[in-house]
Amino acid sequence: MISRHLIDLDTMPLEEIEEILDLAKVIMRQPQYFSDSAHGKIMASLFYEPSTRTQMSFQAAMLKLGGDNIGFDNPLNSSVAKGESLKDTIRVVSNYADIIVIRHPLEGAAKAATMFSRCPVINAGDGGHLHPTQTLTDIFTLLNTKGTLENLTIGICGDLKYGRTVHSLIKTLLRYKNNRFVAISTKELGLPDYIKNMIKNSGCDYIESDSLEDSIGLVDVLYMTRIQRERFDNESDYLKQKGIFVLDPHKLKKAKYGLKILHPLPRVDEIDYEVDEDERAVYFEQTEYGMYARMALILHLLGNSAKQLEPLKESNLDKKCGNPRCITNSEHYLPKLYIKQEKGYICEYCEHTEQ
Amino acid sequence: MISRHLIDLDTMPLEEIEEILDLAKVIMRQPQYFSDSAHGKIMASLFYEPSTRTQMSFQAAMLKLGGDNIGFDNPLNSSVAKGESLKDTIRVVSNYADIIVIRHPLEGAAKAATMFSRCPVINAGDGGHLHPTQTLTDIFTLLNTKGTLENLTIGICGDLKYGRTVHSLIKTLLRYKNNRFVAISTKELGLPDYIKNMIKNSGCDYIESDSLEDSIGLVDVLYMTRIQRERFDNESDYLKQKGIFVLDPHKLKKAKYGLKILHPLPRVDEIDYEVDEDERAVYFEQTEYGMYARMALILHLLGNSAKQLEPLKESNLDKKCGNPRCITNSEHYLPKLYIKQEKGYICEYCEHTEQ
Amino acid sequence: MISRHLIDLDTMPLEEIEEILDLAKVIMRQPQYFSDSAHGKIMASLFYEPSTRTQMSFQAAMLKLGGDNIGFDNPLNSSVAKGESLKDTIRVVSNYADIIVIRHPLEGAAKAATMFSRCPVINAGDGGHLHPTQTLTDIFTLLNTKGTLENLTIGICGDLKYGRTVHSLIKTLLRYKNNRFVAISTKELGLPDYIKNMIKNSGCDYIESDSLEDSIGLVDVLYMTRIQRERFDNESDYLKQKGIFVLDPHKLKKAKYGLKILHPLPRVDEIDYEVDEDERAVYFEQTEYGMYARMALILHLLGNSAKQLEPLKESNLDKKCGNPRCITNSEHYLPKLYIKQEKGYICEYCEHTEQ
Repeated sequence: MISRHLIDLDTMPLEEIEEILDLAKVIMRQPQYFSDSAHGKIMASLFYEPSTRTQMSFQAAMLKLGGDNIGFDNPLNSSVAKGESLKDTIRVVSNYADIIVIRHPLEGAAKAATMFSRCPVINAGDGGHLHPTQTLTDIFTLLNTKGTLENLTIGICGDLKYGRTVHSLIKTLLRYKNNRFVAISTKELGLPDYIKNMIKNSGCDYIESDSLEDSIGLVDVLYMTRIQRERFDNESDYLKQKGIFVLDPHKLKKAKYGLKILHPLPRVDEIDYEVDEDERAVYFEQTEYGMYARMALILHLLGNSAKQLEPLKESNLDKKCGNPRCITNSEHYLPKLYIKQEKGYICEYCEHTEQ
Repeated sequence: MISRHLIDLDTMPLEEIEEILDLAKVIMRQPQYFSDSAHGKIMASLFYEPSTRTQMSFQAAMLKLGGDNIGFDNPLNSSVAKGESLKDTIRVVSNYADIIVIRHPLEGAAKAATMFSRCPVINAGDGGHLHPTQTLTDIFTLLNTKGTLENLTIGICGDLKYGRTVHSLIKTLLRYKNNRFVAISTKELGLPDYIKNMIKNSGCDYIESDSLEDSIGLVDVLYMTRIQRERFDNESDYLKQKGIFVLDPHKLKKAKYGLKILHPLPRVDEIDYEVDEDERAVYFEQTEYGMYARMALILHLLGNSAKQLEPLKESNLDKKCGNPRCITNSEHYLPKLYIKQEKGYICEYCEHTEQ
Repeated sequence: MISRHLIDLDTMPLEEIEEILDLAKVIMRQPQYFSDSAHGKIMASLFYEPSTRTQMSFQAAMLKLGGDNIGFDNPLNSSVAKGESLKDTIRVVSNYADIIVIRHPLEGAAKAATMFSRCPVINAGDGGHLHPTQTLTDIFTLLNTKGTLENLTIGICGDLKYGRTVHSLIKTLLRYKNNRFVAISTKELGLPDYIKNMIKNSGCDYIESDSLEDSIGLVDVLYMTRIQRERFDNESDYLKQKGIFVLDPHKLKKAKYGLKILHPLPRVDEIDYEVDEDERAVYFEQTEYGMYARMALILHLLGNSAKQLEPLKESNLDKKCGNPRCITNSEHYLPKLYIKQEKGYICEYCEHTEQ
């Protein structure tokens, strides 16, 4: 079972995710067996907004498989900034490359890219929407450090309202049995209702907490994220709240012995540097797990790919997407595609719900 | 027969061009035979102005031959912007690399580079002057899609006055038998007289047309190019004229069944997106042909190259070139080289004619 | 004998430097023997300030050993500019790479990087502090063009006060027998006292000269460097002095037949272009020697490296370094490390002396 692209982890069958995780485990144990697995293959990494570390992780993964890299990291000084459409860039680059990794500031851009690519596309972040290889990294880290993806109590701390990695991790962990969540955040930055409903509907459980110190003792896993200054109305609110959600050695004293601390990085100051020395901190190892997960993903997608172009779908609803950050509002040649729901229509690109 | 560099396709013997096209055809059929042909070789791509797609095409070509890449794509944040001369950069980089690809905003820069390079140099665009690998791409596309480079009626549409790819394509096609041109443009942006004279002198034929719709039925090949807004005196003139030279499904109805539509890309809006779905549109395939043409060119130039430096020529006329965009007016150590003509002198770098 | 990192050439045993030079010589003679020596290895070149040529030299060196490259050349448009600490970047990148090359505007940054890297680190310049691979390049060039590193009279011309490559070259040549120095400069830009003292204390000799023309006849080697305009109080002082220290064919007439002229490049105008044609000019060859020296260094450091992390040292003195350009004043989590001296404390990062 091999998907052609990876745009959204939620639409990938669990069996296929597990195939990838299994492969990642074998690669991690015996990387030398795989050092020529992608020999002669080219990955194009098209970063329409810079993300040096994500790009280096993909490039290192490709090189460790014996493949090669082309691409750009800064559209501002590249010709794609001269107004070339996403379609034309993807259509051309997929003539040169065997696999494309795309990061783009607009939501749905990776999905749009699949329509014009002759080779597999990996979504390395489309605006605030999805970032599936971060979630793949996160669950591969859990699998290696906790030994399981079931029966875990996962604390998630920081900006739970806007953090796309948080939502994606929760959704994926809901596909496994008997996980519980502790949502640690300010009131303003708590989990959105649709995520809370998903948790309830899946038969799982969550509690909310406004204190990292009070709730750290409950969790098997602590997933830390950044609270961005710009989410607060004023500086004093920000400073008042911030300290409560900073992990430091003092708070860590109340944690379980077997706790594992993850973070998608980069961190700003939400984890004290002294915590780095604690064996429970696995956020640096997490990046190495991420590289193996990406190696497995690349190999998996290259597995049965052939250079081909799928026929372009036609618009199924003549309607402008109401999300201004949706790719369809910038690239007008894209077919308008909606999925009919009970209460309206969901844009296939950005998942925005229209009435 | 192997030239040391490719600066200007017009000075390369036709037999050598055909050797390269033959090689490109074989590579395209059996790329795997060539996957180690440049093993251990390094290409330096020195892009003094960004052109992401051209650079990616060269880099992919080199990688598919088993070679490797170094270089830069943005001199603004590179040390070459700190005032190092072209000579010093080329002299040093050719110590590291086995072949150099250079793109530069000034005319004659690639020619100047050959004087200081210990390895072959490929011109990937020197200002508005030459861009020989685009023409190589264009004729390899014609050869593959039309089966011949002779007896063709080629429509060329858009900015025929300033378009360097247009002039270069015409000049090359004049070296083949019995080609005819249909120049489709506004009066202001028509073919320059020297190109018209070249066509007449070679015994070939052309007609001019100010309507794409009226003339599309005549041609076997339609080479579309962009009309730049800044070529017009005012916005309303631009808007009035523009539509006439946009290719859309309506105009395409009048075209021959066997028409092939080319475009050097990037396009802006001179070809409607609906045309992409038409089988006669080959501008995306064109970029793939371009990659194979570049693979053949690289291999051809590496063929008998040895690391060496040619003795520096001495100035043969103590005269400042009158073209302000000529490389000799920025890099003053360059010898002044002119070819005597009937009516004056031609600068060897930028081909500007001096009285 | 293999050091784990190369941060400062002065702390590397002379035997180890000679091992590297010996290896460089063998690689230069038979590069093909080494074309797979680093196969499967990845070098990360992290250039926090652009230095295209140094970076290309390292990348070419790695490719010629069969290895591969990742990295960045422009932190301004990379995510490391988003405020990620040096520690986090190094800690993560050393998960992906087998060797790291770092260039950083702050002094002591490379030393700091060694504390968080799981792989060898090479200092490719830390502010105005050290640039050991330039010195390795310089002495490998001397060895190849003069046949020895002993009994030489070395003229050093230009900015001797601030030029870090000059100080480093002198210090290294003092480790060899019987070298003499001719310091050619303005009074204001002469050698600092501590370097003069080092020369005297090592039993070597130096003279000072304010005229390149008068002293060029004395030297076996002339090491030219740039005099920066901004070192002078006013433009007229600069222009008056500048010409005296420009090497031109006229001054070169007074030089020895066997003179060798070196320059760390890039040059501005301190060497006339006509000098390039003189056989005594070896500054372009120097860059090629530099590439072989870097190949040898990379191979040497990869020699017995294993992915590991050294335990973090604790501060040994609770004191802020008085050098505002020291890395410890930007990255506050770094342990404060000082070496006690007779007259105070030396910062282990930037070598600034504290009272």
